[in-house]
Amino acid sequence: MNNVETPNWLANRAFLTPNRVAIKTDKESITFGELHTKTLSFARQLSGLGVSNGDMVALLMRNTIDTVLAIHALKYIGATTVLLNTRLTSHELLWQLEDSKPKTVLTEGFFSERFESIKDKMEWSTLHTLEEIKQVDEKNFDFVSTFQLDLVDTIMYTSGTTGKPKGVLQTYGNHWWSAIGSALNLGLHEKDTWLSSVPLFHISGLSILMRSVIYGITVVLHETFNAEEVNKSILKNKVTIISVVSTMLSQMIDDLGVNKYPSSLRCVLLGGGPAPKPLLEVCKDKLIPVYQTYGMTETSSQIVTLSPEYSLEKLGSAGKPLFPVQIKVVSDGKEVLPNQSGEIVVKGPNVTKGYLNRDDATADSIRNGWLYSGDIGYLDSDGFLYILDRRSDLIVSGGENVYPAEIESVLLSHPFIKEAGVTGINDSIWGQVPCAFINLENQTSLTGEEVQAFCQERLAKYKVPKQVFFVKELPRNASNKLMRKRLVDLIK
Amino acid sequence: MNNVETPNWLANRAFLTPNRVAIKTDKESITFGELHTKTLSFARQLSGLGVSNGDMVALLMRNTIDTVLAIHALKYIGATTVLLNTRLTSHELLWQLEDSKPKTVLTEGFFSERFESIKDKMEWSTLHTLEEIKQVDEKNFDFVSTFQLDLVDTIMYTSGTTGKPKGVLQTYGNHWWSAIGSALNLGLHEKDTWLSSVPLFHISGLSILMRSVIYGITVVLHETFNAEEVNKSILKNKVTIISVVSTMLSQMIDDLGVNKYPSSLRCVLLGGGPAPKPLLEVCKDKLIPVYQTYGMTETSSQIVTLSPEYSLEKLGSAGKPLFPVQIKVVSDGKEVLPNQSGEIVVKGPNVTKGYLNRDDATADSIRNGWLYSGDIGYLDSDGFLYILDRRSDLIVSGGENVYPAEIESVLLSHPFIKEAGVTGINDSIWGQVPCAFINLENQTSLTGEEVQAFCQERLAKYKVPKQVFFVKELPRNASNKLMRKRLVDLIK
Repeated sequence: MNNVETPNWLANRAFLTPNRVAIKTDKESITFGELHTKTLSFARQLSGLGVSNGDMVALLMRNTIDTVLAIHALKYIGATTVLLNTRLTSHELLWQLEDSKPKTVLTEGFFSERFESIKDKMEWSTLHTLEEIKQVDEKNFDFVSTFQLDLVDTIMYTSGTTGKPKGVLQTYGNHWWSAIGSALNLGLHEKDTWLSSVPLFHISGLSILMRSVIYGITVVLHETFNAEEVNKSILKNKVTIISVVSTMLSQMIDDLGVNKYPSSLRCVLLGGGPAPKPLLEVCKDKLIPVYQTYGMTETSSQIVTLSPEYSLEKLGSAGKPLFPVQIKVVSDGKEVLPNQSGEIVVKGPNVTKGYLNRDDATADSIRNGWLYSGDIGYLDSDGFLYILDRRSDLIVSGGENVYPAEIESVLLSHPFIKEAGVTGINDSIWGQVPCAFINLENQTSLTGEEVQAFCQERLAKYKVPKQVFFVKELPRNASNKLMRKRLVDLIK
Repeated sequence: MNNVETPNWLANRAFLTPNRVAIKTDKESITFGELHTKTLSFARQLSGLGVSNGDMVALLMRNTIDTVLAIHALKYIGATTVLLNTRLTSHELLWQLEDSKPKTVLTEGFFSERFESIKDKMEWSTLHTLEEIKQVDEKNFDFVSTFQLDLVDTIMYTSGTTGKPKGVLQTYGNHWWSAIGSALNLGLHEKDTWLSSVPLFHISGLSILMRSVIYGITVVLHETFNAEEVNKSILKNKVTIISVVSTMLSQMIDDLGVNKYPSSLRCVLLGGGPAPKPLLEVCKDKLIPVYQTYGMTETSSQIVTLSPEYSLEKLGSAGKPLFPVQIKVVSDGKEVLPNQSGEIVVKGPNVTKGYLNRDDATADSIRNGWLYSGDIGYLDSDGFLYILDRRSDLIVSGGENVYPAEIESVLLSHPFIKEAGVTGINDSIWGQVPCAFINLENQTSLTGEEVQAFCQERLAKYKVPKQVFFVKELPRNASNKLMRKRLVDLIK
């Protein structure tokens, strides 16, 4: 069982079921056979640019078929792909590129401006746009016909307690086993069609692409999320599975009005934190088959899922682990009894082997094969998992993870700011939004707008504090540690 | 990815979906929760008998729930299970027990007679019947909560060119990946119900049990195959998948008469050699969804499957490989072009790591990770596999593999028999049956009945030659090797 390998997923899928539809967008529809041919051609152009086996290549691209080609082509060549969040500022991009040092960065003309201020600093990388790549002559390369499951395939950045983003290493095996665990849980039907309007640079979107080629099912790819478009697409494309977060689902239900979804929509996979009860009740009335899930970049998408028959009975629960996964709740180094809370730890072949260039963070998070998630929760007596508190005071805003420490670190870099604390406050659209509490240096002054403008240059828009409160001191515990949970008390 | 482990399959399934029905027989129906409880209790009784982790335990039992309990209980304890064919004679049983040296042999009172003449020779084993086990006091044991995929789980004997049966090592991983490959190919529906009237001591039956706990689906277990009972059961139990060989399917269709199967029967998995064209045409008329398959004990069930849409267009083909499997056709050590024939070699995580106590046979069969099947075939230009000739002149009789060399070796042990050759001849019921060609020593005489009686004591009934021909010499090639294919010419 050591060094398990599988045939190259897309190439094998194109061999097994060449005529099935692989990807549909509002403009085109291509089969697995065509996708393979186009991917080969794209890979030959990348080879023409000098991309080769073992390279690190970063992608900053939107949800398009070209991005799908790029993702598969890099596997054909045997490069490791760093998937960059398209909402990042130049400042944030530079940080991730400095950390991962990709030999090549692939982007679209659309994002060129984003690189203007930083491209001179990226001396380790060559930057290419899609538009350029399409002009490159094809060059043969050594086609990777089998995937070694323990090899790193992709890297995605997440932040954490320190505020510095860390690159999560995702192996071919992590993606493979995630797909298998999901199929064993949700089943697999010949006519399955999975709608992705979540970004391909997030594991939620990327995992759909991987499943498509492993299962042989169609992906309906939306460039961005628009409730009305998604609702139309579900009908038109006979979508059977869709991945959403609460804010998306709420908007879809608003747009749906008095109508109902067709029974062909068999699974609405709901990630990004526990869903509000009223939303679940509406879903029950409308017979929407909601599967609540819990997962993270480190587990290559969902690892715990609640099936619809339990969605109200076990309200607030994320469900039970997918088949090959094991979970425990641990406190003081020991597994706790049912209904007692502790840190959620998980183990399974879909769990990352660590963080890029961060042996310390890896050793801290993964102990004896178990990943310490930092999230707090408990298992009830039937074994259903409940999440009480996301790790590192994580704020989940419209499905994006926002780490207070990362924003605080930007705020504290302003010469006038002495102390800063960030926490999430409830928001009817986004679930939560980040808000800042600031204690200024003596003799200085700043407005909320100035603070926001300062952040805007350095942080993706969804991380910029929506409100800024100026206070005299921040709540700290005896060891002077910021108590973020108590920040909201300052404005009560 | 090294040392991948999964939670104990049945125990985890009982945790995830305790109330789903695991097994149905004509007498009872038990859920995964109940199956787990009964298995635990059975395992404690085995522990009371002294069975413990790391033991080798042989099973000679029929298709009953008790057998299912025994199979799972041995995994709970961490013993390796040797599955014995219930049709074997005492003589054949002794050979396999001498080879595998199990510490314990579990059987039923029904088979006690079979052990009468050999139990004194089995000094390395303790023999226990089910009836005895049920009287044993339960004793606690160290429950195996996770399965190491590279550990040997089961052993099944197959014969081969030498005529001596070899124990095929099947790891937990072999069974797991076989289940995964099958699900990726056939899909997995929540209401799936798999009928097994094939023996649990064969990989065809055992693999259904493994899939049941890995997928969480119901097995409808028949003690033996009876076409009328099976047809009734398909209707009554809303069976969605059934595993058959051609002779079974023919009988089922005869019994079906003018009726049709319900559309809920979505997959008829047809193993044991290529199906006759008239049978496939009847299936097409009756809309029976036949999936032809190719596989062997060494690959833990099917590795190549032809889906119904191709069953006539690609008539005679076994189809394409299941997802994680790779196949090649090799001649003179090189992969051949499409439409050229050669030996079929396969690679994948469902392929055995070798034979018990047979390093030579293992090294001969598995080279550089590829299993040399001994079967001859070709891939057409679309990549569909066609089997031309089964390994070692294999005779497939009613789904059972019959090896000429094994029968010849018994015949040659008779003092009057100078030369013996065995080949299969076509039979309308069994597909093929073994027939013997015998050259007697000078001055001796034997009747066909005497030869059959001699075999009957030493070989399972399905291996006993159905016809015996006495000849003056056997066809041999220049190096004096028996040419079995030419035996039939002697009676033309």
